[in-house]
Amino acid sequence: MAKIQVGIPQGTRDFSTDIVRKRNYIFSTVRSVFELYGFQPLETPTMENIETLMGKYGEEGDKLIFKVLNNGLGDPKNLEKSKAAFENVLNGKNDKNLTERALRYDLTIPFARYVAMNHAQLTFPFKRYQIQPVWRADRPQKGRYREFYQCDADVVGSYSLLNEVELANIYAEVFSQLKIDVEIRINNRKILAGLAELCGGADKMMDITIAIDKLDKIGLEKVKEELATRGLQENQVARIEQYLSIEGSNEEKLQQLTELMGDNETAKKGIEEITYVLNYAAIAGNSKLVTDFTLARGLNYYTGTIFEVKAKNVQMGSIGGGGRYDDLTGLFGVPNLPGVGISFGVDRIYDVMEELKLFPEAVQTGTQVLFFNLGDAESRKAFELAQQLRGKGVRCELYHELAKFDKQFKYAEKKAIPFIVIIGSKELEEGTCVIKDLKKSEQFALKQNELQNFSF
Amino acid sequence: MAKIQVGIPQGTRDFSTDIVRKRNYIFSTVRSVFELYGFQPLETPTMENIETLMGKYGEEGDKLIFKVLNNGLGDPKNLEKSKAAFENVLNGKNDKNLTERALRYDLTIPFARYVAMNHAQLTFPFKRYQIQPVWRADRPQKGRYREFYQCDADVVGSYSLLNEVELANIYAEVFSQLKIDVEIRINNRKILAGLAELCGGADKMMDITIAIDKLDKIGLEKVKEELATRGLQENQVARIEQYLSIEGSNEEKLQQLTELMGDNETAKKGIEEITYVLNYAAIAGNSKLVTDFTLARGLNYYTGTIFEVKAKNVQMGSIGGGGRYDDLTGLFGVPNLPGVGISFGVDRIYDVMEELKLFPEAVQTGTQVLFFNLGDAESRKAFELAQQLRGKGVRCELYHELAKFDKQFKYAEKKAIPFIVIIGSKELEEGTCVIKDLKKSEQFALKQNELQNFSF
Repeated sequence: MAKIQVGIPQGTRDFSTDIVRKRNYIFSTVRSVFELYGFQPLETPTMENIETLMGKYGEEGDKLIFKVLNNGLGDPKNLEKSKAAFENVLNGKNDKNLTERALRYDLTIPFARYVAMNHAQLTFPFKRYQIQPVWRADRPQKGRYREFYQCDADVVGSYSLLNEVELANIYAEVFSQLKIDVEIRINNRKILAGLAELCGGADKMMDITIAIDKLDKIGLEKVKEELATRGLQENQVARIEQYLSIEGSNEEKLQQLTELMGDNETAKKGIEEITYVLNYAAIAGNSKLVTDFTLARGLNYYTGTIFEVKAKNVQMGSIGGGGRYDDLTGLFGVPNLPGVGISFGVDRIYDVMEELKLFPEAVQTGTQVLFFNLGDAESRKAFELAQQLRGKGVRCELYHELAKFDKQFKYAEKKAIPFIVIIGSKELEEGTCVIKDLKKSEQFALKQNELQNFSF
Repeated sequence: MAKIQVGIPQGTRDFSTDIVRKRNYIFSTVRSVFELYGFQPLETPTMENIETLMGKYGEEGDKLIFKVLNNGLGDPKNLEKSKAAFENVLNGKNDKNLTERALRYDLTIPFARYVAMNHAQLTFPFKRYQIQPVWRADRPQKGRYREFYQCDADVVGSYSLLNEVELANIYAEVFSQLKIDVEIRINNRKILAGLAELCGGADKMMDITIAIDKLDKIGLEKVKEELATRGLQENQVARIEQYLSIEGSNEEKLQQLTELMGDNETAKKGIEEITYVLNYAAIAGNSKLVTDFTLARGLNYYTGTIFEVKAKNVQMGSIGGGGRYDDLTGLFGVPNLPGVGISFGVDRIYDVMEELKLFPEAVQTGTQVLFFNLGDAESRKAFELAQQLRGKGVRCELYHELAKFDKQFKYAEKKAIPFIVIIGSKELEEGTCVIKDLKKSEQFALKQNELQNFSF
């Protein structure tokens, strides 16, 4: 037998049956909650024109985009074409000579491109969700893949804070259905902006945000050092220290924050917005929201509310995040479309559910009943009965050929099929069958015509 | 406003909400029937190592594979790396200098690769289904895309004809659920092989098959001419003419075929197999199978049963096909794994269902109820009631802001939301709400606490 090495590209995965089923359980839970709130599905192509993606994710991002080779290049039978393309690239001409298409890097830019292309036909506010894979040429490591799913919901064309409220409820509802105990952290970029205005001016916001973002990792003293290095004065650092030490219930924290920020208008607006969202969430019985003024969500495009979801009782980074942004489609020539969105981290959610054993058993059951194959006439009857059960929605298999009892039994065991139905010559004659319940280790006889009413 | 041209690559598609919903209806129907018959899901990565794909689809196929550029090539800031890679390619070295990964071209080769990699752990017969997109750099035209879904079910590791029976039933069941009237054409490669043995020898099988495959397009006379050109003698052509003119019911056709093929052992085996499948299908009440001895299914790797599904009452190529093959994984170093599989042509099935208006209305309903937003206190009550309905599984939206009646009404119309719930100041005071049923053009009042029992 020839030994041939087979494998898959680094950072990619085959999903075998068990994993597909569990992942689909997460996807379908998220999808049904998105739909309960009026979000509608969208799917965009795997490949985008390269100019749609390049320059949208910063210099580092550009490097991580998988590009698709133009057709025919590299073909050993036609190197002339390659030669011309290569020369153009090396002479600094557009690298479209080499590649015109690239793989989707996230779901946000394709969504923005879709909205820009179709905005005249869309009904605003436009509420879409999108659950599709993305690709990044990142160095693979534990929990980081080159192909992974994103799972986003966004509303564009609305400034209303009701959207924030509903997105927070979607988080609460999804994680309640998945039985993951979570904290939905909420902050508002306007509060951070207000803090910057009070501590060195608006242009210090980025410095302050970068330092604050490290609080969990490096601790308060180091953050203070970094703030000083970044040019903040002692009294400014002291105020930020006060800001970072705010604690208590949501009400208590907002109270302390209000006092600290005085009459800064930007911060006031942020506090007002966060209060609105909290009040509305209370009506819906959503008790998972926790204000966290240290939450910054990196250096991205958020301008108002920001969210981050953490699972309790398990060590794991955030399993969801999102926020409000001012201008989704300006990059594609359609300005002034504000929006707000959230995202679920499916791979991490999967890991949390595995660790806490939260996947329901039913999710993992494939075939429910295996009919043994014990001869020509016997298997014909078994086939007939299997068809009847399938008509009732029961997932059945008939063992594919006559084989020893033991072999068929092992097949059921390996596939974790919970019930076996046996029709041997005796049962065939008597119009009965034997049911083995493998979970309860029980077996009993039944009339064949009663089988379709048995509850598997 | 800056005009920026945005678009998507030729041959790819955005799927907007309506289309996603309809396609998901097809996918979920197929998936649930696959599962009824004990097939289990598998998902493989979008990218495969390039050596996994190259050389598996013939010379033409190789050219249509989308290859992914190795990371960093073409980067204007680091042309040294590109230069070295380009030189290697032009010097006839392995083009892995340019590309090591490629996009999935079909689901069969990745499946074979998966089975070869994991065969020691798998339980055989291994029944898997796979529903994923594939990519081909074909020239786009009506109904032919560069990104499209395939939808396959295969059993490997079994010679049993029960598999063929069950796959035929899967076809019948899926199309019955989708309400598409079909004919499942069945033939057996052994019958074609027997015919070749009788008409010029086994090595003529390919010539005969190619000619027969054109019968629909060019007619009998031209097929006869082609057979003569391909070196068949007059009496051989005459026998093929007799073969092609077999007609009647399945029984009648098999009767005529048996007589024509005399005691050719290969043909006898084929007739025996087809008869077995037909008999078993009859037990299951599957009346859609039609023997068609002219069916050849191209020049592929099939060795036994072949299937092709055609929709009645509509002009359209085949909407499904498949058959039995001898050796799935030999290419990857694991020989002697026979199998049989079928495939659904999702894009064509979609087109048939659109043309015959077969998509159920419920598939196309997103949000079921829109609550109007008529002020602060009013919308707060509406929000509370919407949350209650969502708890009952009703898909609701609350209009995002206070707006004129007309504007909110138009939103419901454009999104085809069938029900509107109105709570104005009067209703708020009285604890009632007004329901507008837009399909029936009716409206009526209801107590707010009765709303959650209303059947939307």
